[in-house]
Amino acid sequence: MAKLRLHIANSTSKHPVYHITSERWAAAAARHPDLASALDVSMSWDGAGLDEALASADVGIGVPADRSRLAERAPRMRWLHHTSAGVDALLPFDWLPPALVLTNNRGAHGRKAQQYMRMAYTALNVRLPRMIDNQAARRWERLFSPSLEGQTALVIGLGDLGEAAARAARQLGMKVIGVRRHAKPCEHADRVHTFDELDELLPSADYVAIAVPLTAETRHLLDARRIGLMKPTAGLINIARAPVVDYDALRAALREGRLSGAVLDVVEPEPLPPESPLWDTPNLIITPHVSCDDSEDYVAISLDLWFANFARFLRGDALEARVDAKLGY
Amino acid sequence: MAKLRLHIANSTSKHPVYHITSERWAAAAARHPDLASALDVSMSWDGAGLDEALASADVGIGVPADRSRLAERAPRMRWLHHTSAGVDALLPFDWLPPALVLTNNRGAHGRKAQQYMRMAYTALNVRLPRMIDNQAARRWERLFSPSLEGQTALVIGLGDLGEAAARAARQLGMKVIGVRRHAKPCEHADRVHTFDELDELLPSADYVAIAVPLTAETRHLLDARRIGLMKPTAGLINIARAPVVDYDALRAALREGRLSGAVLDVVEPEPLPPESPLWDTPNLIITPHVSCDDSEDYVAISLDLWFANFARFLRGDALEARVDAKLGY
Repeated sequence: MAKLRLHIANSTSKHPVYHITSERWAAAAARHPDLASALDVSMSWDGAGLDEALASADVGIGVPADRSRLAERAPRMRWLHHTSAGVDALLPFDWLPPALVLTNNRGAHGRKAQQYMRMAYTALNVRLPRMIDNQAARRWERLFSPSLEGQTALVIGLGDLGEAAARAARQLGMKVIGVRRHAKPCEHADRVHTFDELDELLPSADYVAIAVPLTAETRHLLDARRIGLMKPTAGLINIARAPVVDYDALRAALREGRLSGAVLDVVEPEPLPPESPLWDTPNLIITPHVSCDDSEDYVAISLDLWFANFARFLRGDALEARVDAKLGY
Repeated sequence: MAKLRLHIANSTSKHPVYHITSERWAAAAARHPDLASALDVSMSWDGAGLDEALASADVGIGVPADRSRLAERAPRMRWLHHTSAGVDALLPFDWLPPALVLTNNRGAHGRKAQQYMRMAYTALNVRLPRMIDNQAARRWERLFSPSLEGQTALVIGLGDLGEAAARAARQLGMKVIGVRRHAKPCEHADRVHTFDELDELLPSADYVAIAVPLTAETRHLLDARRIGLMKPTAGLINIARAPVVDYDALRAALREGRLSGAVLDVVEPEPLPPESPLWDTPNLIITPHVSCDDSEDYVAISLDLWFANFARFLRGDALEARVDAKLGY
């Protein structure tokens, strides 16, 4: 049987944690020898040699920075895999040939995200953001806090990250309310609601966790009005995409004590420039977009998921983690 | 049957979280009506009316600030309960009449301590102390981290707090090595060693959690030499008493990158004065001695434990949480 041509497009502008190096590919191939033997693999960095490879590629890992005329440049390509979960940077999908299946990296982030969420909930509960402000001000203020048990986490979005946020809340003994497009139950949430019920749910939450993809519909989903519906003792966590929350409104709420604290793993733009007013917003902890990606085995986890999908591809089954061009995620 | 006289000595210099108010006492008594009916209760604040009450008290809650000639001033007293777990502030025990049983508040701190420890481990793993320094410096630095699973927590001391530290580490998927005076097994630790093996254990730890009482033996247990035995990637957590660790040596190690980070809930003195060099030590998070005390029900938990002990007292059984004057805890 003729081998299928796989091209892996890497970018040195990404952090090395994300690089699919030859060594990491070889290690993954060794874990899936039968599947790997069906592949003829090429690799490019920053677009060098990319077009030559695309001309004969059947499948691709890594969406090229230059996506113009993709159907012409990659005439045989049937499946393209994006190496992160968020595809908002690829919007709008006018570049995507109708016959090309696009998948994302959902599934690779849950374990680490769950750990991050445990940190975020527990840190907000003890009011660590304020303690850090106090430390900078050399101010001793004994701030006591109740137990997390029995408090309520409102998790917005129940994909890979949202499920991790829900699992973490459960482990800490919290009630979990989920919100997503369809009110389909989730085993890690006590109840699941749709977005149109969000206004009624926000006042009951002790923690609001943002875990939805960024689309036209979710941009500023949490705006000034909705932030105003939250308890003044509530904490906000964003591990998804910055524009889902109106950060100007959030900063005002944190400055004025209308929220207890926030933990943000995503900001805009990234890297956050030194002049951003976010840096010294009180009651706010910023982490540098690392909540969900394991330093040791992010690529290994990702490639294992990819190989499982490749097995489906060879069998002619529907692929997991397909991006819906109409929904935008 | 004549009622037993209980005197509760409160101090307004303590945080209100710790005050045994009339309302909190009444609520606890209502949960234990039969036991409470055997008591005739008096209460004092800051020593006002204390000596008059001590003259006839059979049992006491709250160790008076003035402990001179206690056998003469409280001739009938057989049991005195200290409302915190650490009794180091009461050392040396030359004031303690030999016939008077002293108990401490161990058992009241586990649930909250476990939550704090989950925060501390997860925060150190993602290098939150350095991220906070970066935030203050308006510096974007993507710091990735591995999963906590499979890492090793070394828990020094396996009392109430140490068990909580061990349980938290287990929940996060870590290996747990315990250290205590006797190598008696602990259900939350994979192995338990004695203090004389500490030097061999320190190099294997990813996290070292300090949970021993402060005694003459544990003062500077973690000194410069032992800090030097830790991995440069390791994190230190102290929820016990500050002098168990040589903080000057710790500051040097944190400044020089010989440790990844530290989370300290205890400092010396408390309140920490503005001029302390601890405040701006890099890679360090300070919390204001609140790791183990629930703001909502610290007194309720404490009084429930006390009533359970009071039932033993009435039956003539040995009391739990007895302080060993010789061991000093």
